Amino acid sequence: MSDFDLVIRNARAVTASDSFDCDIGIRAGRIAQLGVALPAGKQEIDAAGRTVTPGGVDAHCHLDQPMPPPTRTADDFDTGTRSAACGGTTTVIPFAAQQKGQSLRAAVEDYRARAAGKAHVDYAFHLIVSDPTPTVLQEELPSLIKEGFTSFKIYMTYDDMKLDDGQILDVLDVARQHGALAMVHAENADCIEWLTRRLEAAGRTAPRFHAHARPMLVEREATHRAIALAELVDVPILIVHVSGREAVEQIRWARAHGLNIFAETCPQYLFLTAEDLGIDDSYKGAKCVCSPPPRDRANQQVIWDGLNDGLFTVFSSDHAPFKFDAPEGKKPDRQEVAFRHIPNGIPGLETRMALLWSEGVLGGRMTPHRFVELTATGPAKAYGLHPRKGTIAIGADADLVIWDEREFVLRNEQLHHEVDYTPYEGMRLKAWPGITLCRGEVVWDGQFHARPGQGALLACGKPSLLPQRPKA
Amino acid sequence: MSDFDLVIRNARAVTASDSFDCDIGIRAGRIAQLGVALPAGKQEIDAAGRTVTPGGVDAHCHLDQPMPPPTRTADDFDTGTRSAACGGTTTVIPFAAQQKGQSLRAAVEDYRARAAGKAHVDYAFHLIVSDPTPTVLQEELPSLIKEGFTSFKIYMTYDDMKLDDGQILDVLDVARQHGALAMVHAENADCIEWLTRRLEAAGRTAPRFHAHARPMLVEREATHRAIALAELVDVPILIVHVSGREAVEQIRWARAHGLNIFAETCPQYLFLTAEDLGIDDSYKGAKCVCSPPPRDRANQQVIWDGLNDGLFTVFSSDHAPFKFDAPEGKKPDRQEVAFRHIPNGIPGLETRMALLWSEGVLGGRMTPHRFVELTATGPAKAYGLHPRKGTIAIGADADLVIWDEREFVLRNEQLHHEVDYTPYEGMRLKAWPGITLCRGEVVWDGQFHARPGQGALLACGKPSLLPQRPKA
Amino acid sequence: MSDFDLVIRNARAVTASDSFDCDIGIRAGRIAQLGVALPAGKQEIDAAGRTVTPGGVDAHCHLDQPMPPPTRTADDFDTGTRSAACGGTTTVIPFAAQQKGQSLRAAVEDYRARAAGKAHVDYAFHLIVSDPTPTVLQEELPSLIKEGFTSFKIYMTYDDMKLDDGQILDVLDVARQHGALAMVHAENADCIEWLTRRLEAAGRTAPRFHAHARPMLVEREATHRAIALAELVDVPILIVHVSGREAVEQIRWARAHGLNIFAETCPQYLFLTAEDLGIDDSYKGAKCVCSPPPRDRANQQVIWDGLNDGLFTVFSSDHAPFKFDAPEGKKPDRQEVAFRHIPNGIPGLETRMALLWSEGVLGGRMTPHRFVELTATGPAKAYGLHPRKGTIAIGADADLVIWDEREFVLRNEQLHHEVDYTPYEGMRLKAWPGITLCRGEVVWDGQFHARPGQGALLACGKPSLLPQRPKA
Amino acid sequence: MSDFDLVIRNARAVTASDSFDCDIGIRAGRIAQLGVALPAGKQEIDAAGRTVTPGGVDAHCHLDQPMPPPTRTADDFDTGTRSAACGGTTTVIPFAAQQKGQSLRAAVEDYRARAAGKAHVDYAFHLIVSDPTPTVLQEELPSLIKEGFTSFKIYMTYDDMKLDDGQILDVLDVARQHGALAMVHAENADCIEWLTRRLEAAGRTAPRFHAHARPMLVEREATHRAIALAELVDVPILIVHVSGREAVEQIRWARAHGLNIFAETCPQYLFLTAEDLGIDDSYKGAKCVCSPPPRDRANQQVIWDGLNDGLFTVFSSDHAPFKFDAPEGKKPDRQEVAFRHIPNGIPGLETRMALLWSEGVLGGRMTPHRFVELTATGPAKAYGLHPRKGTIAIGADADLVIWDEREFVLRNEQLHHEVDYTPYEGMRLKAWPGITLCRGEVVWDGQFHARPGQGALLACGKPSLLPQRPKA
Repeated sequence: MSDFDLVIRNARAVTASDSFDCDIGIRAGRIAQLGVALPAGKQEIDAAGRTVTPGGVDAHCHLDQPMPPPTRTADDFDTGTRSAACGGTTTVIPFAAQQKGQSLRAAVEDYRARAAGKAHVDYAFHLIVSDPTPTVLQEELPSLIKEGFTSFKIYMTYDDMKLDDGQILDVLDVARQHGALAMVHAENADCIEWLTRRLEAAGRTAPRFHAHARPMLVEREATHRAIALAELVDVPILIVHVSGREAVEQIRWARAHGLNIFAETCPQYLFLTAEDLGIDDSYKGAKCVCSPPPRDRANQQVIWDGLNDGLFTVFSSDHAPFKFDAPEGKKPDRQEVAFRHIPNGIPGLETRMALLWSEGVLGGRMTPHRFVELTATGPAKAYGLHPRKGTIAIGADADLVIWDEREFVLRNEQLHHEVDYTPYEGMRLKAWPGITLCRGEVVWDGQFHARPGQGALLACGKPSLLPQRPKA
Repeated sequence: MSDFDLVIRNARAVTASDSFDCDIGIRAGRIAQLGVALPAGKQEIDAAGRTVTPGGVDAHCHLDQPMPPPTRTADDFDTGTRSAACGGTTTVIPFAAQQKGQSLRAAVEDYRARAAGKAHVDYAFHLIVSDPTPTVLQEELPSLIKEGFTSFKIYMTYDDMKLDDGQILDVLDVARQHGALAMVHAENADCIEWLTRRLEAAGRTAPRFHAHARPMLVEREATHRAIALAELVDVPILIVHVSGREAVEQIRWARAHGLNIFAETCPQYLFLTAEDLGIDDSYKGAKCVCSPPPRDRANQQVIWDGLNDGLFTVFSSDHAPFKFDAPEGKKPDRQEVAFRHIPNGIPGLETRMALLWSEGVLGGRMTPHRFVELTATGPAKAYGLHPRKGTIAIGADADLVIWDEREFVLRNEQLHHEVDYTPYEGMRLKAWPGITLCRGEVVWDGQFHARPGQGALLACGKPSLLPQRPKA
Repeated sequence: MSDFDLVIRNARAVTASDSFDCDIGIRAGRIAQLGVALPAGKQEIDAAGRTVTPGGVDAHCHLDQPMPPPTRTADDFDTGTRSAACGGTTTVIPFAAQQKGQSLRAAVEDYRARAAGKAHVDYAFHLIVSDPTPTVLQEELPSLIKEGFTSFKIYMTYDDMKLDDGQILDVLDVARQHGALAMVHAENADCIEWLTRRLEAAGRTAPRFHAHARPMLVEREATHRAIALAELVDVPILIVHVSGREAVEQIRWARAHGLNIFAETCPQYLFLTAEDLGIDDSYKGAKCVCSPPPRDRANQQVIWDGLNDGLFTVFSSDHAPFKFDAPEGKKPDRQEVAFRHIPNGIPGLETRMALLWSEGVLGGRMTPHRFVELTATGPAKAYGLHPRKGTIAIGADADLVIWDEREFVLRNEQLHHEVDYTPYEGMRLKAWPGITLCRGEVVWDGQFHARPGQGALLACGKPSLLPQRPKA
Repeated sequence: MSDFDLVIRNARAVTASDSFDCDIGIRAGRIAQLGVALPAGKQEIDAAGRTVTPGGVDAHCHLDQPMPPPTRTADDFDTGTRSAACGGTTTVIPFAAQQKGQSLRAAVEDYRARAAGKAHVDYAFHLIVSDPTPTVLQEELPSLIKEGFTSFKIYMTYDDMKLDDGQILDVLDVARQHGALAMVHAENADCIEWLTRRLEAAGRTAPRFHAHARPMLVEREATHRAIALAELVDVPILIVHVSGREAVEQIRWARAHGLNIFAETCPQYLFLTAEDLGIDDSYKGAKCVCSPPPRDRANQQVIWDGLNDGLFTVFSSDHAPFKFDAPEGKKPDRQEVAFRHIPNGIPGLETRMALLWSEGVLGGRMTPHRFVELTATGPAKAYGLHPRKGTIAIGADADLVIWDEREFVLRNEQLHHEVDYTPYEGMRLKAWPGITLCRGEVVWDGQFHARPGQGALLACGKPSLLPQRPKA
């Protein structure tokens, strides 16, 4: 009855709404009891008054995703989820990307196989729909949604993945009919291509021109368009990796008009600026090439404001791991590689939680509740994993982080991904996960406790950000 | 150790962020344990899978507040908190109103005395500052804030209470220096008086003209002004009883500009319209006279949208109880009483929770989490009562509501206030609190269990809606 | 010296900024003198105190434009300009439409030939660029601009003409480099097609569903996108036929952000609503099918507001003449013709001026100055025809309207186009042009004075709405 | 018949809508004829192709206005209108200011006497209503409006003139009933006083702190409030001396909502910034103290944008002449004079036209038409002086400026006011009026041709910015 597998003593538990001092009794990987002076468990951990938050849910990361050669993602499900665990993230939702011409189910099976037996933390998949054939729309998507793949991503840019507006409407309509959630990468592809060609014609190919090719209006336009398409179909959407003021204004406009537009942002829009792409033609800036690009300090503040006031529901890493210093890698330090050919994306799975806890909560810019909402509860609700994931509550999986508060300087060698740099190298942080538990098991306590295959594929339910409409 | 005073079994507990099935173990009036299969308590209540929410925190109500004769508030701390308890509200925050010329401390002492030995549920006071003398600003307010009176209300209308802009700045500056929260009643007094005189000159004095004297722009202007004053002082404020689109737009504008403007709304702006003030000169409409007046159905939707998307932090009753059918009362059915002389305010303490649960949650317009946020956690945080009040968490007071879902028609005779009507007479509801517990004691289970004096005065801490700034 | 060809006596002359009583002395088709008591002319017309305005410039009309069979435009340059003259319009700017695969110059030559020897009033051409090949962009457009074809139209919808965003950027860039003005038809093609298919699948093919297939958000989205593209290129554009609130808001937003976005609207957005497309499945509604569709009365007010406050620069007819009752015609009264196959467009060249003078100026909704600005001076400036066209000033062409104020009921049989209906049939008007002069010759005085070939092709200069940038 | 008193040959005439080459025939002080090759006049001036614009109408200036001692306005009607004439301004509209307790008619008589026999150019008066007693509202204002005093100014700040919101509503209601136009000085008095006290308490009294005491939000708040009051009364108003973004946004908001809110700005908001108030405690900055204060360069651009796109109707000087270096003067170079005691206002009557022509038109930022609209036609229409004033048209007063284009450096010794400085000292200009004519007489041609008393008091008609509503 009261024999817990594990009791965490003297926790300062924090949820998206509450903080309370308690012991946490865990049985069969789940939180069975919260209270003062719980009976003994088979194992005990003394949190000693430290803060305990839900393990992070990173709802936007790319693992073992095939790229056009010579590009390859540096992290697979082994190294990626290792990195996640060591950074306090206990659930990841990478993408199963359909290639044009491929069946969506085949894509899912391919990615299942990539993950199988490798993952150290639980995972689910968003589907990337790049070829919405009638079969995909009428058969594959509906059946995959039923099986628990309840979110999909729509690209408005990137030649190999982007959908036109009519295709987007088709996909959104499936989301509406089956209660799935569509994520949208909102940048105008034609504008980017047009600007890129002009920059290239002018010999402006260094990494910093990546930002010139994707100014804020390119994101604003696509954001407005995505909102209009969602409004037409009457379905919620979630705009991913919002970078600054212009897109934010569109989203605020939509919400003020009663539209259910949700939004995600990422650490790079809080902690990097376009200047990190280089102020000369040095190729070091390639380390920070991602899309949309980081903006400037005023826009960082816009993002902080949106995190605090409820504009954003999800804070993800958009972990897209490419090596800087590899022959086949992303970001060679050679001038002849134009920014067009630098893979878009930066690593961030392992640093996401600590960056926001340090600068947000300990920096006095965010309540701890809001931290939990953004890093765990919000994404779990958005993608149908709540209440099993993303919170500290009776019955939830015992995915937990016990925080160590200590100042240190971040170095890539401390990290566990397969990428040879972090864009946050040298940053002074105030905290790091002391212990990470996945379903009641310690996966990180300063040492990584590898158990490949311990992470399981999760079936997602319906998004629970909104009330369920009562049956007619 | 494990001998609980009370265990509530098989609860479907709901917090502002989570829902979970559990038993709730209560000891010494507080929640000591949450979990499955808790040990036995001295008493047990079987919730049988019913929903259990935190007891309501009604942060805006008027009890035993002296009025210019012949007007009197119908409810004192006995009948008012009785009504609260029977409607699922376990904490009330009425006002201690300073009269011009009166010391603020004297006002507080007066109200303490009015409440002493009478209240059935816990209570705190907001201070109404109507005479911000140097003594009030420099001595009384700072010391009262230290003693736990950490919120005060500023009126921009009503001759006996309104402050001019310079006074408002002075009071806001005290709030800023001492970490208190100012609430603002935002309507432009001069506009109302000007319109009222013109209506009176035209013989338009029936209750429905109350709404003509207070159109939305009167509220919008004052809301914009309040925001500007708060921006000047650089302090958060909370705009109370927001009624519709025009004020909402101003608040959205402010938040989009990074200002910490919080907002409250009330049931009357969801469930009444200006038509309830009468469509002819009948004095029945007097029953619904409140300020700002209810608007129209389109504005109700604007308020619903704001409740859902995080614009509003607090959902209160603004209970202002006046009898309709009393010689000295508010709302005599006599034509010769002009709307100017009808006391502003309607009863609502007892119906607030059930209206929002019925129409919001069960009506499919709101998640149960958002219900808890708005009726309990939000107000508790805004006014420094969280985490003791407003949630279901280890260590919190065992203030709980167990909900009965059943359809019935609301009648005033079912209610426990001293008012002879409810504006919601005849409304079909889907739920009502089955059991209300205050600090672990059943105060309502279909019967009211009177224990005057059981309710205690609460000392409020700092508002916890925002992160605490780290010490320099 | 002082021997005028014609003197108009006792005119109440109105320009975009002024009104003054004077005689107008005309020599060689131009206004040579304005003043009191001018010397005699060879001919004299006594205006007898009536209002004299500049002849209208209709900057948006379709004449003799080939359509996919069996559709054909009912008016060629003979009947179209006849209709214009009788309605007080003395300059028309129809389109020279490039077909995909066709050289732009060939299109221009084709249209020149269509107009040659037929036109009764002066004319210019906007180019419709439907196939922006490198030759078109780098050679044809620049040389045509030099020759006086300084405006071109970009379609965001219609399969045979629409450009993608990249093509639009290319065309806008030519406009920027060569000082031309791009007009944009802003509706999202994919949205329209998607909605049309769904309506068709539901059997909703009656004319009124044309409006369902093109809701305001379809126009809003494309308007926002067009603005973003123009912002990217840093070039002014003119959004044509703006229909209502949602597009208007986008344009206001742009102007408030310092962007040079100009706009046009048309009579159909002031005087028709979607209900004129039918309230049942009757095919009478086909008479009012145009794109964007008319909206509702609230949107009419939005358009009136924009006309008055300077949002709109141009008020055009968008005359697109299709017969209702012709075998090959647009709008057969047969149920089997789905709205998709009803040609988009309504006649309006002849009624444009009188509708706005009657309802706008005489109806007390607009100053006469603003009328002149919108119907003549504004379009002449926008398209580089000012000061020769569009005003009453020394040296300007003597293109004039002398107004008769009299009430009458509008009937199609009074009109001179080749279309068998007017959407404004039965409307009560307060005025009609009494006399129209083109370059000093009377073309209409109650009788039409045919002189095919009197109308000449005009070479357009640069748009003069904005200051010319000083040479560096 | 054709014997003109004066013919101006070879003019490049510019109106608010047109430009044309012509001779201008003048008879009895009015423009009698415009045309090519006019017959000879008694006098002739050869403009030789130079630009001729309407003489300026300066609708906001303070002449011989009593101030609390020791302050005095440096210019009376002699020196002020001398300065105007030499700068190309041919009509001024200063203020007749009511003092509290004074009858409004007495104020008017007082100012009439001050002007009588002194003015060199025509003039009218705006009334400053500082004491809206029932007599003022019901008798004096209505009869003065009938007599041609059709505009009045409302102050929201300055202790001796400000009205409370109820008084403003009363005055606006008179404007509405009698078709007058109310101008509003929009700054929140309480905010300014509150900030001033705090700055003073901190010893921050140098001129530059004047800008700290009047941040943009102080102007924004009052602008919003003025708009709301005008909306309540349903009457157009004109917001004077708008300084930057925050007020501009409120005005744009209002216009987008269909409200008739007009606006004025001044040279100081284009050519000065807050830095001109000093970057240290030097008292030189006193020379630029005016209210609202100049803002920064980004706000200058906002004002330029508003001038170009039609937001502003009027460009005035707000000439408020105080000597810098006089014992009794405004702006003594002594540290002990706190900014609170520096009279608010700067000289500008003589420089207004040349600054805008140089930097606006010749600088390529504005069309010459817009220049005329803003400096002459717009103010003449706003205040009921059009078509007699503010344009070049048959019948209009021959108030004209012939422009000399030449580069020079502006020095106060070139100016003709009685102020001992100009805030624009040292600025490089590109043009200055070569000849100014008032009613056909040369008052300035490089020499000032004094004729005190030549300027007459004008009776103003109704504002003609809006259509006159047709009689019911």
